[in-house]
Amino acid sequence: MSPLPDLIIEPIVRLALAEDLGRAGDVTSQAIITADLRAAFIVRARAPGVVAGLDAAALTARLVDPALAFTAKIEDGALVAARDVIATLSGPARAILTAERTMLNFIGRLSGVATLTRRYVDLVAGTKARIVATRKTTPGLRALEKHAVLSGGGGAHRYGLDDAILIKDNHIAAVGGIAPAMTRAKAACGHLMRIEIEVDSLAQLEEAVRFSPDVILLDNFAIDDLARAVALIGGRIPLEASGGVRLDTVRAIAETGVDYISVGALTHSAPALDVALDAT
Amino acid sequence: MSPLPDLIIEPIVRLALAEDLGRAGDVTSQAIITADLRAAFIVRARAPGVVAGLDAAALTARLVDPALAFTAKIEDGALVAARDVIATLSGPARAILTAERTMLNFIGRLSGVATLTRRYVDLVAGTKARIVATRKTTPGLRALEKHAVLSGGGGAHRYGLDDAILIKDNHIAAVGGIAPAMTRAKAACGHLMRIEIEVDSLAQLEEAVRFSPDVILLDNFAIDDLARAVALIGGRIPLEASGGVRLDTVRAIAETGVDYISVGALTHSAPALDVALDAT
Amino acid sequence: MSPLPDLIIEPIVRLALAEDLGRAGDVTSQAIITADLRAAFIVRARAPGVVAGLDAAALTARLVDPALAFTAKIEDGALVAARDVIATLSGPARAILTAERTMLNFIGRLSGVATLTRRYVDLVAGTKARIVATRKTTPGLRALEKHAVLSGGGGAHRYGLDDAILIKDNHIAAVGGIAPAMTRAKAACGHLMRIEIEVDSLAQLEEAVRFSPDVILLDNFAIDDLARAVALIGGRIPLEASGGVRLDTVRAIAETGVDYISVGALTHSAPALDVALDAT
Amino acid sequence: MSPLPDLIIEPIVRLALAEDLGRAGDVTSQAIITADLRAAFIVRARAPGVVAGLDAAALTARLVDPALAFTAKIEDGALVAARDVIATLSGPARAILTAERTMLNFIGRLSGVATLTRRYVDLVAGTKARIVATRKTTPGLRALEKHAVLSGGGGAHRYGLDDAILIKDNHIAAVGGIAPAMTRAKAACGHLMRIEIEVDSLAQLEEAVRFSPDVILLDNFAIDDLARAVALIGGRIPLEASGGVRLDTVRAIAETGVDYISVGALTHSAPALDVALDAT
Amino acid sequence: MSPLPDLIIEPIVRLALAEDLGRAGDVTSQAIITADLRAAFIVRARAPGVVAGLDAAALTARLVDPALAFTAKIEDGALVAARDVIATLSGPARAILTAERTMLNFIGRLSGVATLTRRYVDLVAGTKARIVATRKTTPGLRALEKHAVLSGGGGAHRYGLDDAILIKDNHIAAVGGIAPAMTRAKAACGHLMRIEIEVDSLAQLEEAVRFSPDVILLDNFAIDDLARAVALIGGRIPLEASGGVRLDTVRAIAETGVDYISVGALTHSAPALDVALDAT
Amino acid sequence: MSPLPDLIIEPIVRLALAEDLGRAGDVTSQAIITADLRAAFIVRARAPGVVAGLDAAALTARLVDPALAFTAKIEDGALVAARDVIATLSGPARAILTAERTMLNFIGRLSGVATLTRRYVDLVAGTKARIVATRKTTPGLRALEKHAVLSGGGGAHRYGLDDAILIKDNHIAAVGGIAPAMTRAKAACGHLMRIEIEVDSLAQLEEAVRFSPDVILLDNFAIDDLARAVALIGGRIPLEASGGVRLDTVRAIAETGVDYISVGALTHSAPALDVALDAT
Repeated sequence: MSPLPDLIIEPIVRLALAEDLGRAGDVTSQAIITADLRAAFIVRARAPGVVAGLDAAALTARLVDPALAFTAKIEDGALVAARDVIATLSGPARAILTAERTMLNFIGRLSGVATLTRRYVDLVAGTKARIVATRKTTPGLRALEKHAVLSGGGGAHRYGLDDAILIKDNHIAAVGGIAPAMTRAKAACGHLMRIEIEVDSLAQLEEAVRFSPDVILLDNFAIDDLARAVALIGGRIPLEASGGVRLDTVRAIAETGVDYISVGALTHSAPALDVALDAT
Repeated sequence: MSPLPDLIIEPIVRLALAEDLGRAGDVTSQAIITADLRAAFIVRARAPGVVAGLDAAALTARLVDPALAFTAKIEDGALVAARDVIATLSGPARAILTAERTMLNFIGRLSGVATLTRRYVDLVAGTKARIVATRKTTPGLRALEKHAVLSGGGGAHRYGLDDAILIKDNHIAAVGGIAPAMTRAKAACGHLMRIEIEVDSLAQLEEAVRFSPDVILLDNFAIDDLARAVALIGGRIPLEASGGVRLDTVRAIAETGVDYISVGALTHSAPALDVALDAT
Repeated sequence: MSPLPDLIIEPIVRLALAEDLGRAGDVTSQAIITADLRAAFIVRARAPGVVAGLDAAALTARLVDPALAFTAKIEDGALVAARDVIATLSGPARAILTAERTMLNFIGRLSGVATLTRRYVDLVAGTKARIVATRKTTPGLRALEKHAVLSGGGGAHRYGLDDAILIKDNHIAAVGGIAPAMTRAKAACGHLMRIEIEVDSLAQLEEAVRFSPDVILLDNFAIDDLARAVALIGGRIPLEASGGVRLDTVRAIAETGVDYISVGALTHSAPALDVALDAT
Repeated sequence: MSPLPDLIIEPIVRLALAEDLGRAGDVTSQAIITADLRAAFIVRARAPGVVAGLDAAALTARLVDPALAFTAKIEDGALVAARDVIATLSGPARAILTAERTMLNFIGRLSGVATLTRRYVDLVAGTKARIVATRKTTPGLRALEKHAVLSGGGGAHRYGLDDAILIKDNHIAAVGGIAPAMTRAKAACGHLMRIEIEVDSLAQLEEAVRFSPDVILLDNFAIDDLARAVALIGGRIPLEASGGVRLDTVRAIAETGVDYISVGALTHSAPALDVALDAT
Repeated sequence: MSPLPDLIIEPIVRLALAEDLGRAGDVTSQAIITADLRAAFIVRARAPGVVAGLDAAALTARLVDPALAFTAKIEDGALVAARDVIATLSGPARAILTAERTMLNFIGRLSGVATLTRRYVDLVAGTKARIVATRKTTPGLRALEKHAVLSGGGGAHRYGLDDAILIKDNHIAAVGGIAPAMTRAKAACGHLMRIEIEVDSLAQLEEAVRFSPDVILLDNFAIDDLARAVALIGGRIPLEASGGVRLDTVRAIAETGVDYISVGALTHSAPALDVALDAT
Repeated sequence: MSPLPDLIIEPIVRLALAEDLGRAGDVTSQAIITADLRAAFIVRARAPGVVAGLDAAALTARLVDPALAFTAKIEDGALVAARDVIATLSGPARAILTAERTMLNFIGRLSGVATLTRRYVDLVAGTKARIVATRKTTPGLRALEKHAVLSGGGGAHRYGLDDAILIKDNHIAAVGGIAPAMTRAKAACGHLMRIEIEVDSLAQLEEAVRFSPDVILLDNFAIDDLARAVALIGGRIPLEASGGVRLDTVRAIAETGVDYISVGALTHSAPALDVALDAT
């Protein structure tokens, strides 16, 4: 994975450090550890998974103390087994212990997202379906979590409300139907922006397709209806399935032939990967 | 629960909105929905749980458009069943749809934390153990997630590195033992600050207790050893258990008689509560 | 035009006010005008044009003093003649004079962008060509200037480096040709993101079209070559012309049949519209 | 020109980069260009002019990637011909392409301001008149545009509302005349602050001069009246002319003998200087 | 005194509240006081002095809770006796207690500055000398402390390094004498900016006066030399005395006939005025 | 003293530099001193005292120009005599003069706090009393001033409203007595947080002690009553005295046997230590 620019992650890294350091800093390490003590530690996985968040961890270390050397031993997206070394950290012992929790919080959460993404991706292997994220991300972590989904082999979908048009059920209801919604959307849409529309039934699908959206989102379709939709469209327009996607249902959904499956759980319900800082 | 001051949550709410609005805002709603359309929606639970994050949701609505009326129908900490109404939202339809996802992301994540906390709390009912959080929180959400733990009936533990001294294994290793660590900590500690020390064995426990820390953290003790530790201390110093705490182990840990059980999963691995915005 | 959300424009409005107020504020008005003096003023055009920036002006007034009443008499995108009333402003006289210059700077610059856009748009009337902006915007004003282009009847193009893929000559050179560039771009591209590729010659155009980009940018093509490109593509892929676009050349470019004409000057070289604050 | 301190320009440079990078960064370069590719480019003028904005460009490069080497080949204020080299840029190819547009936007706009300033300055050569800027600057760019005016040989005038007293027609109207305005201004004015007053007629000039302001601004005076004003004052007080100043009128204004001519167009209507990034 | 604009004081008020509220807010009041309890309190002086900082206190209250009503009973600059009422505060009791300390810290410190200023001003009554501040202000409080000096009857002097030229001994030493320093300063100085030069001896004074600076600063002159300097200049140039100014020396300095006396202690060593929040 | 992390002090250092540099920077040094002139200066005490604020001074220098070498010759907490060298500063002369005042403002104010603290600490030498600060700190400087108190040998007390419970008279009044206040506080208090309660009389003391607070604050007790309180408590609970603490009263208070004496004046009324920048 190419890394995220520091400029994008710096605000959330600073916010995370500010909330941990408070007004007095790491009072324990300041009290107990002498300023000149140096140490070397290892960031290690304690469970198997896919790693993400290394850039945020590296920036955390640098902001706590430019004298800290954080060296990633693998890249975002790499598979690790329990006990694998993710990174090494050396320098002033106080600074290492001060940075520890914030670094691990970034790696743990984002690797959790990447790991869950990979599980979904592996489950649909061999089908044409691509697992993609949603905007159901943790507040403040949108860019990092989308990047973690990419690290796990998924796709990002929209990054925000402004980079594509996605007409949802509430929009259709508000404007009184698919026709006026698509007409207005096309009139307002720039030439480098795509339009996706959500439909709830095969009838809506048939109506929507007449307006040639770039993508159609099949929301909460039964498996049979997904298959019917795929047959109906015949590859003319990419189809995305959403709703009711779980580890135990995703394979069947993928086998209907849809192009994309969007999974909110990738970002809103991924358990953290267990990572720890061990003395060398 | 008393609410968190807006001043504390405003930075993360602004960050969340900035990442969703981007540079062009909600292009879909701007294209499709007329400026004068007004609407009323309901925030509803789709699964049972404990609600949290209502203050962040309310502030989100207000920052998107002061003309939005967000009215919480329950308070943080309330139990909801699937389909229960959490809040109502009325005003300009565009603004409601613009605010929707960010509001739901706050409520979903924080209610997930509160709900998981409550499950742990319920599992130890009748024992003296109190479930408490850790610093394994989502970057940027420390204050909100700690508040969600309180909403679920748990305790907050340290909010950061600066509000209590917690001597961990790495500190003890770095300084060469419990004795110098405790001695230095006591010398540096203010009169309104507490000292907790982590021990890994009964032998360490016996050494630590000689320095009268305010709390002792028993890290990764076997159940039998926890019981021995409780007997050894005899109530003189509060004991906190950590490590290997899961929904299927927490009861046995609590029954050893420890005073506190800290659970990282409350904040690092809680699945979101499913909440949605429905038209009325 | 639907307005931009205040959340998007607030940072630049605060920056503009901070640089004008400095550390001591409006020393002249504080010295000369009594606190209780109220006044009413009119924002008036002094030259014909298309108005934009009213939201930024309204927010400026509100941030200087919530007691100021700024009332737009027209909307962004409206045509004005010299002496037409754009808005009224009433309230404490001191606050009006303090806010005056910053408000006018926003309206003047953004209306200048809208006005120049409209001149280009009018010049290509009757052709299929749509005038669109570039990323050659004023630092800090990206969202506002893109919105001003929309107000003038143009299209926004990319808002930043992250909302579409645009492969330029330097990318092609760096990677060694169109084929690897398009192949890598398609592999990385999300399903709601478009790909545009810049070509410098008809030969490159023929190569590029084999990879089915969403849009092709014809950079610095002679008029004859633009016409040949249009004929060659035959409507299969939208074509955008750029380079050498001026008020005296745009019509001929449009008449070649291209779909889009991107004009950097809309944002980097638009003279301000002359607007002033007059006593009523 | 001595450079502006980075501390002053950093906020607007960060804002400019944030709006270009968005949430996903430079997706094109990340997709197409490998991380280890290095390159060298040249920033080159494509038209003759006076260069400004090199400090902002250098800081842009450094913030995108500290590994980028930006080397200015000339200083702000230097004259360039078309094709002259302004700066070189070498380092990671991705970072160069990511920084390109923001760097060029700073140099293009600010060099545009410096170039237009120089044209005015050259037109009044041999007279005693000095060309000075106004507060009609681009929101957020006050310090940079004032510096560009200095680079073009002009003077800065007030940087904001707080560094000098400037009594304008609206102030005089509000307080009921020149006498009370000057009296109050003098009473409030610090010993290191100057007072300028705007007059609209020779009669007002005669009244104003009785209060010994530091500078008098002759607003929208006819050429004849400017000459009369100069004769009347006889060098006792510096005179500034404003209003109706254009490239075709500035010489005649200067020849009346006024000391300063303030030109809003320097900052509100300067076309950008055409600059580009070329491969070496 | 006219108030400072909220835009100027908001950053420091937010910083002050953030450092007091931390991550959990006012845990005491949240624990003990019910949300619906309302109260009314009085801000009262406990010692005589001159009040300042009321705007910062009012903004503090508003930011803590818009439902708080802060009503100033006097204006900045008013003299108070011990027990005089400065302001009333009513609304939710929790919010009042949360805001209390930050409000009092602003009023106490800034009133301390105003009070000490007034003491100096009173001591030089009847002379022509005006007491002025320096840049020896508390970091972050420049604008507020300068305003407090004005409230105490003093003058502000420079607000920063950019609003006037002040040539000090180190500048003269660095450039090799008064002549080149003044020559360069005049060449660089804008027409609305003043030049002051510091001299250390009568010999330097005589040299400096040849370059007609706007003000001359007599640094650490003995009383006799101050008188000689006044005689020598004969009113042609304003003279400012600095160095060794204390409550017991200021009168003698003033009586030498200097125009200004700058006193660093006004802002760097003023004891706070004792103010308290009392229940009504 | 261990230094404060840069992350904690950076916001206030940036704010201080921003208010001094304004929009045009150090116009005097830019005008007079050539860019290539290098110099070496010494920060020197002009009066005896205890030094603090060196970290803020070092960060100030680094932010003004990374080429500045600031070398502390002593550590925070060191005693200096008049003329002692505190630090050396070398590099570009312009940058040194630009940074001078902000650096000295930090050192002067914070050393003033440390110096006054040391005076109190020395006065109670030989007693068991420890001098501690309050929350009566300068807005924006909480962390720095608390650190300066530690540098002077004092204790920090609460850093904010959220790191301990302190029940004051107004809380007791609001809730109707000590019993409900302590009961609610204990119910809400985390296991790593302490509770202190303020009492105004021996009767209140006797009531409070029944609830076993961690610390009891004796507010405005007469000396005799302090002694009685100490006798009554007999060492079971730490006692803190506050109110009426001055340099001439602190010894008597300490001799009553109280454990802590809190002194607001340490931070709200400490005169600055006189420090200066001298050429070498």
